[in-house]
This record gives sequence, C-alpha cells and structure tokens, in this order.
Amino acid sequence: MAIEITNELLENVSTLIQEKQDQQISRFFEDIHHADIAEVLDDLTFDEAVYIIRLLDSETTSAVLMEVDEDVREKVLEQLSAKEIAEEIEELDTDDAADVIAELPEERKQEVIQEIEDKEHAKEIVELLRYDEDTAGGLMAKELVKVNVNWSVLRCVKEMRIQAEEVTRVHSIYVVDDEGKLQGRLSLKDLLMASTKAKIEDVYIPKVDFVNVHDYAEDVANVMRKYDLEAIPVIDELGVLVGRITIDDIVDVIKEEAEKDYQLAAGITQDVDSEDNVLALTRARLPWLFLGMVGGLSAASIMGVFQDAMDKSPILFLFTPLIAAMAGNVGVQSSAIIVQGLANDGIKGSIWNRLLKEISLAMLNGVILSFLLFLFVWVTKGNLQIAMAIALSLFSVIIVAGLVGTSIPLILDKYGIDPAIATGPFITTSNDIFGILIYFSIAKLIIGF
Amino acid sequence: MAIEITNELLENVSTLIQEKQDQQISRFFEDIHHADIAEVLDDLTFDEAVYIIRLLDSETTSAVLMEVDEDVREKVLEQLSAKEIAEEIEELDTDDAADVIAELPEERKQEVIQEIEDKEHAKEIVELLRYDEDTAGGLMAKELVKVNVNWSVLRCVKEMRIQAEEVTRVHSIYVVDDEGKLQGRLSLKDLLMASTKAKIEDVYIPKVDFVNVHDYAEDVANVMRKYDLEAIPVIDELGVLVGRITIDDIVDVIKEEAEKDYQLAAGITQDVDSEDNVLALTRARLPWLFLGMVGGLSAASIMGVFQDAMDKSPILFLFTPLIAAMAGNVGVQSSAIIVQGLANDGIKGSIWNRLLKEISLAMLNGVILSFLLFLFVWVTKGNLQIAMAIALSLFSVIIVAGLVGTSIPLILDKYGIDPAIATGPFITTSNDIFGILIYFSIAKLIIGF
Repeated sequence: MAIEITNELLENVSTLIQEKQDQQISRFFEDIHHADIAEVLDDLTFDEAVYIIRLLDSETTSAVLMEVDEDVREKVLEQLSAKEIAEEIEELDTDDAADVIAELPEERKQEVIQEIEDKEHAKEIVELLRYDEDTAGGLMAKELVKVNVNWSVLRCVKEMRIQAEEVTRVHSIYVVDDEGKLQGRLSLKDLLMASTKAKIEDVYIPKVDFVNVHDYAEDVANVMRKYDLEAIPVIDELGVLVGRITIDDIVDVIKEEAEKDYQLAAGITQDVDSEDNVLALTRARLPWLFLGMVGGLSAASIMGVFQDAMDKSPILFLFTPLIAAMAGNVGVQSSAIIVQGLANDGIKGSIWNRLLKEISLAMLNGVILSFLLFLFVWVTKGNLQIAMAIALSLFSVIIVAGLVGTSIPLILDKYGIDPAIATGPFITTSNDIFGILIYFSIAKLIIGF
Repeated sequence: MAIEITNELLENVSTLIQEKQDQQISRFFEDIHHADIAEVLDDLTFDEAVYIIRLLDSETTSAVLMEVDEDVREKVLEQLSAKEIAEEIEELDTDDAADVIAELPEERKQEVIQEIEDKEHAKEIVELLRYDEDTAGGLMAKELVKVNVNWSVLRCVKEMRIQAEEVTRVHSIYVVDDEGKLQGRLSLKDLLMASTKAKIEDVYIPKVDFVNVHDYAEDVANVMRKYDLEAIPVIDELGVLVGRITIDDIVDVIKEEAEKDYQLAAGITQDVDSEDNVLALTRARLPWLFLGMVGGLSAASIMGVFQDAMDKSPILFLFTPLIAAMAGNVGVQSSAIIVQGLANDGIKGSIWNRLLKEISLAMLNGVILSFLLFLFVWVTKGNLQIAMAIALSLFSVIIVAGLVGTSIPLILDKYGIDPAIATGPFITTSNDIFGILIYFSIAKLIIGF
C-alpha cells in the first residue's frame, strides 16, 4: 500500500542498514509497493540503495529498478553481472526490458542479451531496440493478446488463457488474419457475453484505432487522449500487428513532455528536478543565463550608440528596463500560446492569418498600455515630447514583440525544431534587444537628439 | 476512424450546410468519431454547429457535446429545452452528466434534473453535483462493477453481466462487504481463470489502492500515475465505495494542470488557446502586462533616485537591462524547479536546506558569469572600478534572484496558494526591481557618486 516517505522513515531505514538488520529490512519492504521502494532508494545514498536491492527478491528488484532514477539504476546495474541483469530482464515486460538494456554500455548490451534464457523474449527485445525511443515502436510492448479471425470463440478463449498469462493487463483482444495483419478487435466484455459457439468473424469489431510503428510518441499520446483509449495496437508498414502501447506509458509521455516544455520556457535546458545535485542543476541553467548575458551586452552596446541622448534627455534611460521587460513579457505570452497550440495540433490556417490576429491583439493591448504610460509620464515628468516618444515606443515594441513571439515558434516548427525552446530566455533576450533598438530609434525621431 | 481536419474539409461542410444537403451531412458524420465531430464543430460558426447537432442521433450528440469547447456547448444547450437536455443526459455516464449539468444556469439545473426519467441516474447525478470539481468526488463516476465478498464466483459472474451493461469499460471488479465498505478487488483475468464453484472470499485480492472522495484531483493523478493504475475506487468517510475514477479523466487532469502552469509561467491568467478570439486573449494577457508596466515604472523611479550617477558614470546605465534580465532569468529558473517539485510532491527537507542549496547553485553560476562580465567590461571599457561594480552587482543579483525565486513559491504553497503563479511575470517583475536596486546601491558604494 501507499506509504508516506518522511525524513524519519529514511533515517530509520539508514539505521537498520547500519545495524545490518537484514530480516527487519526485508520484512519492512515486503508490503510496500515497488514504486514506493524506488522512491525510498532515490532518497538514500547509493551504497544504502544497493544494500537494500540485494535483500529484495528478483521480481521486486526488477520492478523497483524500472522506477528508480536513471542514475541510481545505472549504478546498481554496474554492480551486477551480465547474468544477474539477464535474470532481472526476464521478469520485465518487453518494453521495460528494452528500455533497461538500451541504457547499458554497448558491449554489455550484447552480453546481457546472450544471457537471457527465454530466447523468444530475447528476440522480441532485440526487435524493440531497433526503434527510436520517441516513436510508437520505442513505447510499445510485444505482450498482447491476439486471435485469428478464422477461429471460434471457444478456441479463442482457450488460446487467450495461454496468452493472457504473459500479459499483465489484457485490455483489448486484437483480431488478425493468417498473415498477422490487424483486422479489428474484440472487447473482453463482448467475449464475456458471447456464446462459445460463435465465430470470431461474426463477433469481432472491424473498426479499431491503431498507430504506425514510426509515429512520434507525442502524436500517439494525442490520439489516445483524444479518443480516450487505454491501449492502442501498433502496426508496421505491411499492416502487421507488431505491438501494443498502454495508457500508463502515455501518461508518462504526456507528463514528461509537459515538464520539458515548462523547463524550456523557464530557461532550463536539461531534464533536472529539484532533488538533483548542484552541478547537474548548474549545467542545465548556465547556458541560457550565458545567452541572457550576451543579450544584455548587446543591449548595452546598442544603448552606447545612442549615448548622445543621455545629455539631451537623460530621462529616456530610466525607461529602458520598462521597455525591455514589456518586450520580453509580450513575446513570452505570444510564443506560449503558439507552442501550446502546436503541441495540441490546434494551429490551423496560414501563418499570415495568425500574424494578423497577433497584430490586432497587440494593438489592443498596446493602445491601452501606451495610453496609460503616456498619461503617467506626461503628468509626472511634464514633458509632452518625451511622454509621446516613450508611449509610441511601447506601442511599437508590443507589436513587434508579439510578432516575433508568434513567428519564431511557427518557423522553428516548420523546420522540424521543437518550438518549445522559443518560449523563455530565447524570446526574452531577442525581444530585449529589439525593444531597446526600437525605443531609441523612435525617441531619436521624435526628440531628434 | 481518425480524420484530419483541414480547411478544405471545413469549407465542404459549410457548403453542404448552405445547400441544406441534410442526407449527405448525416452520411458524412456517420462514420466519424465523436471527438473528431466535436473538433469540426469547434471550428465552424455557432449556427453551423447547431445545424449539424440537430442532424445527429441522440447518442452521438451527447458524446459530441462532452468533447466540444465549453462555449459551443453552452450555446447549443441554450437552444435545447430542459426535456431535450435531459434526454442527452440519460445517454451520458454519471460523471459526464454531472459536468454538463454543473455548467447550466441555476434554475435550469433543477428543470433538467426533474426531466430525467431514470430516477436512479438522476439521484446519482445529484450526489455527484455535491462535490467540488477539483476533488476525487468531482472526477468519479457512479458506474462500476462491484460484488459482495460473500457471493460465489457463479453468482458474481451473473450479477456482473447485469452491471457490466451500464459500464463502458470494466477494469477492476470491486469487492465490498454487506455495508458496502470496500474490501478489495477481483481482476477480470483472475475471474476468467477461476472455477465457477469458488467463493469470492477465497479468490479476491484484499490489497487495493483507493482514494478518498475529498482528495484533490492532482493528488489522485499523482497516485494513479505512480502506481500505473487505470482505474481507482473512491471511498467516503465511512469506507463505503462511492465511485470510480478512470485514467482517461486523469489524463485530462494532468494535461490541463500542465497547460495551466505553463500559461501562468508565461503570464497568461486565464485558460485560453490559440483559437480563442482576440478579446478573450486580451483579457488573459493584459493583467500581467499591466503588472509588468507598474514594475517598469517602479524601476524607473528607483533609477531616478540614482540620477546623480548619470553625470559621473553614465556607463552604468547601459548595463541596467543586462542586470534586470539576469535577475528575471535566474528567478524564473529557480521558481520553475520548485513549482515542478511541489507539483510532483518531490520537495523534501526544510525550506532552509532548499535555500542553502539555491545559494550554492547561485554562487557557482554567479562566479562564472560575473567573472566573464568583469573581464569583458574591463577590457572593452578600460575602467577597473566600473567593471568591479558591475560584476559584483551581477553576482549579488544572481544570489538574491535565486533566493526570491526559490522562496516565493514555497511560501505561496505553505499558505495554500497555487505556487505556479510565482513563475513568470510575478518573479520577473519583482526581480527586475530588486536587481536594479541592488545594482545601483553596490555601484554607489564602490564608485561613490
């Protein structure tokens, strides 16, 4: 059952390990879900984690290994022989098994695969290793229940009992022809209600959603979410049923995709979490900060060009942070809407329509904000010309920033680059520079320094 | 089957509607999944959508209504009588039915509920309406398959056949005692393999994950994702089984939660998407922009205080956008990591440890970036004092911005406010102001203007 992992619990476990209370440790973990054991191991030191792994039975170990952080898994597997890893692999479904093997160093992969006793399992794993991890092939498992369209319900139930032993959750029963091509599906419920004398031909549902083995994981997620599917069959180029993807893997895809986009928007370039060490976090954060600094230096040199203005209208310089911040904010808003729309497959119509919409949006926001700024500067500083220059700049900057924020993700997407990198520091930095350039150019035109 | 919704398809549909080709329209939508029909309706004008809805059969209509955008649904329902809505409601599962009714104006709710012919269904819907939509009770459906622990497998199968007719997907069979308290579960697979003579008592699994009816939707999602569950039973305060939540609803919760956080981080305050109209998008975007502007004006007035510096070291002003941008970037990074950690329930240890970690992280980033900036300014401007002032400011700003970014979401979370509002314009704006204040204070100390 679910447990809460508190600091107290972790300290108790550490104490038990120091005192080598193996029996008590085994008993403690016996009733705990493998996902919770994995969480405990993630929070212990590496030596403590290995100590506990050694006390667990093989089935639990393999399940726990699937759930722990990648670095913990890597270190535990380093301690095991190829034969020991192969034994863990035999306990796993083909998709998980392939994921674990894919993480091993090249030469160990070979060794481990050769040590797998169930040759059929090994063959299936080798097949799965061929696919890119971001595609349907990389997500699917070979475990599924399939029946031939020419069978009777009776034979079908018999065969299913054999096949079902290897499958954790049955979901749908897929119907194939003699060549293995996907023809349709049978629901467990229908089967539960059908007479044993019926033929599969007569009771199966010929309508079935499927994906192709090379489809992107994100597209598979969109299909399964849209049609509320809990499992989807995967076919190859010939229409042959080659695997099945279940919703639990898709939930992880959706979650990871969302977290990656969120981190990119915040200027974090690698998959890290709050529990990672300072070095890993720095590696993920420094690149965008460096980019931001280069942007700041560019802004400084642009301002340097307009330094004459400082003598004539020093007040202009007070508003540069405002202009830069607004350019950044507008750009991030526009790009976030587009990035989300692209991820949900919801951007329709041409780029030009999209930009036109953004212009009207920016004009509306721009008129309201610029008017307020104009009033404020005019009233507090009493200089109409400067108030006009600043307000007009803000208006132009909002429109340009909106256009930049809208078009950059669309262009990146067109060239096959993940548009999510466009939201965040990239847009903020480029808009800072654009913003300041526009600001001083307009000010120069109006005030004429 | 899945279709691709192109502009051409939409134009064809519009033409068919103009020409009142009702038969062709009906035939066209006959083979299309209700989720796809909903997408087509979202992209048509409201009148066109209503026209099509009138041509669909009642079962399809109710399914389509569940999938269309909220504003389309609202407008369609306005056109229907209470009796007609009640007929649609009868086709829906209790959870969807309750969601539709919850959106109706108060006086219509009553009317519609009274028109529902199936009184049992109506009673269940009324029960579901009591729960907050962000809790397990708000997500669950009353449809589930449950058997009494005292029954035989034979009786169980008989009863299940009756119950299963009302349930779209069976998943687990829940086992309850005479008082309806949840005791455990039966898997369909086990039942498929068990002898009909066995007793439920002897074959059921007493270990079952569950949630309480008042648990937050986000927590339910975390539990189901962690334990790879496809359905979870919901119990009330007495332990009585009151409903069931399926993974398809949780997928939507995860997706919506992620999108909301992403939009908040980008300074978008309301749930909008790229297809919404300009006014809705402006309402969602203007508030944060206004906040940004107020922040910019505050920054301007702080700089105004240090205006003496402009005479002595005008160069200082060139670097204000750099300092402000870095403060914003660091703050957003820090807060994003914390917000994500909180959402995944992954923040352990005290706030002080967390801040200490952030300080070491900021020091590392700060030393590297400040040193580079120092070298750059020293070499290009040839003024050691100014280079030192700017570099030292950047260093301090990075540390303070990191601390602000880390502590604000933690504090908000402590007081029960969604920490996600902390990432984005809120942090950027406050860090802009802090950054500029720190910058000029340090510069004043070193250069002494």
